[in-house]
Formats: sequence, C-alpha cells, structure tokens
Amino acid sequence: MIRFKNGRILPMTNGCEITEGEVWTNGSKISFVGKPTEEQLKNTKFDRVIDLDGDVIMPSFKNAHTHSAMTFLRSYADDLPLQNWLYTKVFPMEAKLTGDHIYWLSKLAILEYLSSGVTACFDMYFNPEDYVHANTECGFRTVLCGSVSGGAENIERLDSCMKQFNGIHPLISYRLGFHAEYTASRELLEGMGELVKKYKAPVSTHNSETAKEVRECVEKYGKTPTELFDSLGILDYGGSSFHCVHLSENDMDIFAKRGMYAVTCPGSNSKLASGIAPICKLLEKGIPLAIGTDGPASNNCLDMFREMFLVTALQKLSLNDAAACPAGEVLKAATVGGAHAMGLDDCDVIAEGKQADLIVIDLKQPNMQPLNSIANNIVYSGSKTNIRLTMCAGSILYENHCFSVGEDPKRIYARANEIISSMRD
Amino acid sequence: MIRFKNGRILPMTNGCEITEGEVWTNGSKISFVGKPTEEQLKNTKFDRVIDLDGDVIMPSFKNAHTHSAMTFLRSYADDLPLQNWLYTKVFPMEAKLTGDHIYWLSKLAILEYLSSGVTACFDMYFNPEDYVHANTECGFRTVLCGSVSGGAENIERLDSCMKQFNGIHPLISYRLGFHAEYTASRELLEGMGELVKKYKAPVSTHNSETAKEVRECVEKYGKTPTELFDSLGILDYGGSSFHCVHLSENDMDIFAKRGMYAVTCPGSNSKLASGIAPICKLLEKGIPLAIGTDGPASNNCLDMFREMFLVTALQKLSLNDAAACPAGEVLKAATVGGAHAMGLDDCDVIAEGKQADLIVIDLKQPNMQPLNSIANNIVYSGSKTNIRLTMCAGSILYENHCFSVGEDPKRIYARANEIISSMRD
Repeated sequence: MIRFKNGRILPMTNGCEITEGEVWTNGSKISFVGKPTEEQLKNTKFDRVIDLDGDVIMPSFKNAHTHSAMTFLRSYADDLPLQNWLYTKVFPMEAKLTGDHIYWLSKLAILEYLSSGVTACFDMYFNPEDYVHANTECGFRTVLCGSVSGGAENIERLDSCMKQFNGIHPLISYRLGFHAEYTASRELLEGMGELVKKYKAPVSTHNSETAKEVRECVEKYGKTPTELFDSLGILDYGGSSFHCVHLSENDMDIFAKRGMYAVTCPGSNSKLASGIAPICKLLEKGIPLAIGTDGPASNNCLDMFREMFLVTALQKLSLNDAAACPAGEVLKAATVGGAHAMGLDDCDVIAEGKQADLIVIDLKQPNMQPLNSIANNIVYSGSKTNIRLTMCAGSILYENHCFSVGEDPKRIYARANEIISSMRD
Repeated sequence: MIRFKNGRILPMTNGCEITEGEVWTNGSKISFVGKPTEEQLKNTKFDRVIDLDGDVIMPSFKNAHTHSAMTFLRSYADDLPLQNWLYTKVFPMEAKLTGDHIYWLSKLAILEYLSSGVTACFDMYFNPEDYVHANTECGFRTVLCGSVSGGAENIERLDSCMKQFNGIHPLISYRLGFHAEYTASRELLEGMGELVKKYKAPVSTHNSETAKEVRECVEKYGKTPTELFDSLGILDYGGSSFHCVHLSENDMDIFAKRGMYAVTCPGSNSKLASGIAPICKLLEKGIPLAIGTDGPASNNCLDMFREMFLVTALQKLSLNDAAACPAGEVLKAATVGGAHAMGLDDCDVIAEGKQADLIVIDLKQPNMQPLNSIANNIVYSGSKTNIRLTMCAGSILYENHCFSVGEDPKRIYARANEIISSMRD
C-alpha cells in the first residue's frame, strides 16, 4: 500500500473542486480517499508514505488519440500539407517498419506520455502485438483501436483482434475502429456496420480532419463522413471520432444522438493547418469531449499541457471571445472525458475502488505560483516540469524526472536513432 | 573559467546549423568557441568542466515583451475580454501594488524565465527601482522599457529614468517607451517625438494589439497607431512594437522603412482573443521579428517553448498552409531577434567575445528523440523540461531543475501568495 499525505486532492468528481485529505493505493486500485482516523492509520501498514507537501494529486491524463510508434518520424518532415506529408513522407517510411521497430518506438512514446502525466492512450497503429509487448513491459495502459483500411477482407482481421487482445492483459483492451473514410472501401465500411451489430460495440475512427476529406466524401457518397457512417449502422453504439475539425450542424446532431465522443487534437490540427474544431459548439450540444495528441510525426510532441492550452486558446481566437471554453471544461476532457471515450470507466477520477491511475502536480515551481486558481494554473500555465509523479495501475512509473519502466531510457533513445538511420539508408 | 565539452553547438550564426566543439566562458563573456588544441587545453585552468554528453549549447532565449511583476494576477481573472479584464480586474489590483510587492513578484517571474531558458527580458512596468533591485540580486538581465501613459507631464519622468537607469548596473539598461496610444494623450505622444529627437533613440510600445484599439485610434486621429507614431517622429530611430496583431499594409511598410522590430506575443493574443499577428507577411517584408510572453496575467505563463510553437502553429492555421513559418525563423526570433530588438547586440549568438548568455538543451529526454532535426525538435516538441542549464552573463542561474538566485524559491512563492492574499482582503 502507498499513502499520499499532506496533499491537495483534485478528484475531478465535482468540477475542479479541491478537497483536503489523503489518497491510499492498494495494488492497482485506490483504496482510500479522505481524512483517515487515528485508528485507520494505526491498523494500516504502508509500503511507502509520500509526503505531498501541499502538492496536488489528481487523475492522470488520458490521451484519447495517438499513433505511438510514429516517434521515428518526429521532425522528419515538418512544414508540409497533410495529404502530401502523409502520402510522400509518412506512408513510404511506415512501409519499412518491422515489429521490432514498433516495439522500441512505442517505448519511446510511452516515456514521453509518462513525463506528461499520461497513463493511458487510445492507440491506432499496425502490429498491435509488438505494441502490446512494449506497453505491458513498461506497465503502461493502452486501449488499442482497430486501424483497418482498404477492402472488406480486413474485417476478419479486426474481428480476430477483438478476440485476441481483449482479456490478454489487465492493462490492454481493444476496440473496434478503422483508419478513416478516405482510406476505406465502401465494402469495408459496410463490414464495419456488420461488426457493430455483432459486437454491439462502439467504433472509433478519424473523422472530418480536413476540409478536403469531407468534400471528397460528399462528392463520392452524397454524405459527410459522419452521415455515411451513421447510415451504415457504424455509429449505432456510439464511439469516438478523432479530430472533428470540419463537422456540420447535422454531423454534430448525429454525435449527440449517438452519444459519440469528439476527440480533439489541436496540436496536430494546427501544425498540419487542418483547422480549428468547433469545441464550444460541441459542448453546447452536450457532446462529450476528449483530447488526443495525435502521433508524434504530426504534432510533434506528446504533451497534454500543450494540448490543453491549445484547446481553449484556439476557441477563444476563432470565436473572438476570451471567455470561450473555460479551463474546467478542458481539464475534464483531458482526464474524465478521455477515460470515458476509451472505455476506461474505472480510470476516470480519484475515488475509492477506482484504478490508481493518477499524477502528482508539483506546485512548487514558479509557473504554478501564486495559487489564485490551481485548476487554471494547470491548464493555462502548467507544463511537463510540473509532473512530480505518474502512477499507472498503482505502480509509480515516473517520479522526480526519473523513469521506472524496466529499461534504461538511453537504450530506448539509441534504438530509436538506429531505426531511423537504417531507414534512411 | 567554465569549459563546456562534448556538446553540440547551435550558435545561431548560420541559420540553425549545428557545429562540433567546445564553448568556454570567462567572467561574463564567451572566451572560446571551437575545437581547442592540446596546447590550449594544457595552458588553461578551468573552475569547472561541464560534460555536455551530446547536449546542445545555444544562445538563451530573450523575452522581448513582458510585465514581469504581474505574476500576482496569474489565474486571477481568466476568460475575460481584454478591455474588461484590463479595466475591471488588472488596473484596480495594480493600484494596490507597493514597491516591496514588485520586488518579490518580479523575483517569481525571474525564476520562471530561467526555467524556460530566458536570460533577459524587455520589461515594461511601474517602480523600475524595485524591479532592478530584484533583477540584479538574481543575476538576471533586463532592458527596462519606459511605461509612461497619461499626459505630457510624464515625459520628464521618462527623461530622468533614461539618465538614472542606463549605466546603473552591467545587467540593466533602459529604453524609451510608453504604454500605448490608447492610454496616452496627444501631448504625451508629441513629447515622445521630442525625446526621440533629443536621444536619437528607438522607442517601444504596445501597438495594434486589438482591433478596437486600431479602430478607435483611426476614429480619433484619422491614422492607425503606427501612422500616428510615425507622423510624430516617434519612429525616426526605429524601435519595437509589441503585439502587432492588426497592422495594415501601410503600417508594415512603415515598420520596414524605419527598421522596426515586430514583437509577437501569441500566447497572450490567443488567450485574450486579440487575434493572430501577420508573422509571415512581416517576414516577407523583411521586418525583423522577436517573441514576447507578455505578462503572466494574460498568458498565463512565461514559457518560450509554448510561444515558439504558437508562433508557427498559428501562422499555419491562419494561412491554411502547413509550410508557413518554418522552425528556423521561429528559433531565430526567440534568440537573435529578441536580443537585437532589446538592443542586446552582444547577447545574441554563441561567439567569442559575446556575453555568456546561453542555455544547454537536454536531448536525453523522450520529446527530443530521435534526432531527425534538433532545431525542429526544439521548436515543435521542446519544453521547459529540456532546459538543463541557464547561464546569464557567465553565471549559472539554473541547472538540473535547481535555481541559484541567492534566494530560496519557496520564500518567493510564500511572499507571492501573501501579497495576493493581502490584496484580496
């Protein structure tokens, strides 16, 4: 058991209200939240007592859209338009990837997640076996997202992944998904609709990331991607859509009706000039929100603090309204919203019985002072330097700038450099 | 003497080209850059040898627009429109500030600058004496910017500040400036024109931050702020303008003609919904660029990494062009551009004889790997966690997350909280 004492608790169970008390963890779970009695303290044996000294303990961030192994393409081809970047730079390099590459490149991403207070990601990529291997070795949590594209023959692969990966490890789950409308045949999309009926399960996909994607879909099918997916039954059990930059009013109404999560990726959408998602409108319509970094090739970093600031800053700018998208909504999306979008309902808040997926925010840094509003400080001036500790499923994987993932980070950096060098040759 | 060895040098003397070699500092200056001979090494006695182990040594960032002491209003009144925020929240609280408050609140800002790799700022605020006191005690470098507003009677004060603060300390200088057109009387602006003639010196001011400011200036004077300043001789010796969001073509031509620096503050402009500065257009016209965080009440943080990403990301978004404003331009603005905008011509690059105002970037962090492009990594995925060391005028003020500013940071945090608490009462 681990005892966190003398801290401030931001449980995210009641807006951004902060309470006093302790948090105890036992195995992978939170076993106590509140003010313990003398009796309780006397009767409990702790493996470790962490004095928070006024620092904040809160739910960890959940990265609701990413392609972890794309770390190898960080700063490899910046400053290009999305379609050009994707087809002339990304896809040819991805074709050279091996399973061993994905294993190491994913470990690199996991280090970066942990340093940013992220304990789980919704990962869409190839070779899930190798990613799972890297992931479970590090002690990180992942929800794998189906990444099929092309023709209907790939539906069978998705079906078998659902069976193979759900239940494989307590830190791993798998959800139905496909890459995007623009990389899928009509037959694949119809097959997705059939799978949804079979599993009665939500589906996740890239959706309306660029204006071009939506325009071409309307030209091809007479429907927006969201309308098309809905017409094929793909959204019957909800799910989540990544990016959501170019949604119509009708698209948003479909989201609301189907209980869909909008996963916003403002870092990637800015860097690739894709546009600004209508976050305030989505919130007005009651559509739940989550935040994703997208992959490190497009963002280029995996930093939830940068994403949080961008979510609100870009709304303020695009709506010409400094009051738009207040900090509390952003913090909720980065924690609770992300967990729910990924189906991690037991990793969402700080409460007894929940998974111990949590972070400690170091307030004793200049960017967190003074303490006019801790939640606003986290969203508007927070940075990775404020992550004092990251715990996933009760294990401390990052503390005081050091990683505990069973591997020397320098070895991971060396392998990542070797991999990209070998591909350039 | 301090010897930095085994590093990569990003001198910013030739774009973002990285060279190999060593950097030595002697007193406040850089005394050697390059590959030393055995003879040189044998004949030189070092006080300290720092093994960079492959990390990058580069010029420090220069924060070309800020109001340091406004740390007390961080997260105090977020999510409000600029004019409302300024007149109902900021000005009433500022009226309560004492010199002692400014001393402590400035020290808080200086800690944050150092943690972000910033060694100098262009500070516009009241009570320069108290700021200078805080500043020189910490060993930080500042160019004070005249902050007069109101009527012509304040010109005399500005004149006396020019005499009082220039030459007061090697780390301090003072430049002509006034708050903004919208807080100045016509007489004050005319007085500024006279002072410029007297000193033959550049002038700095807020300029075209909001559409309202420009509209009302045109209504009042029949000229944009830039046109008005130019017509009064205020720009005769150049200078710098802060924000530059709503510039006309003619304004930009005046900037080019007068050799004016545009200081962009994208964090503040986003958070206050002021708009996006036309950075690419300014660059096209050959107008030199610098970057400022603005004050911590509006931003809310003093983080040059966040600003750098925003400079390029917002151009890409607003121009719908992922190729807009490449990383090299941004890095130049954050270092060389900032130094020149503030008149710190000897603090701009890593070269023999220059001031030793430099930083070490820790590449052994996941967000800096792999090393496809170090400059792009710094701009697109860098964060304050990558600041391994910050040196100002040859003194190491921040290293491995610890401050050396002659004061316990916790005492500074405590005082900042006491100050804002006393003001609320």
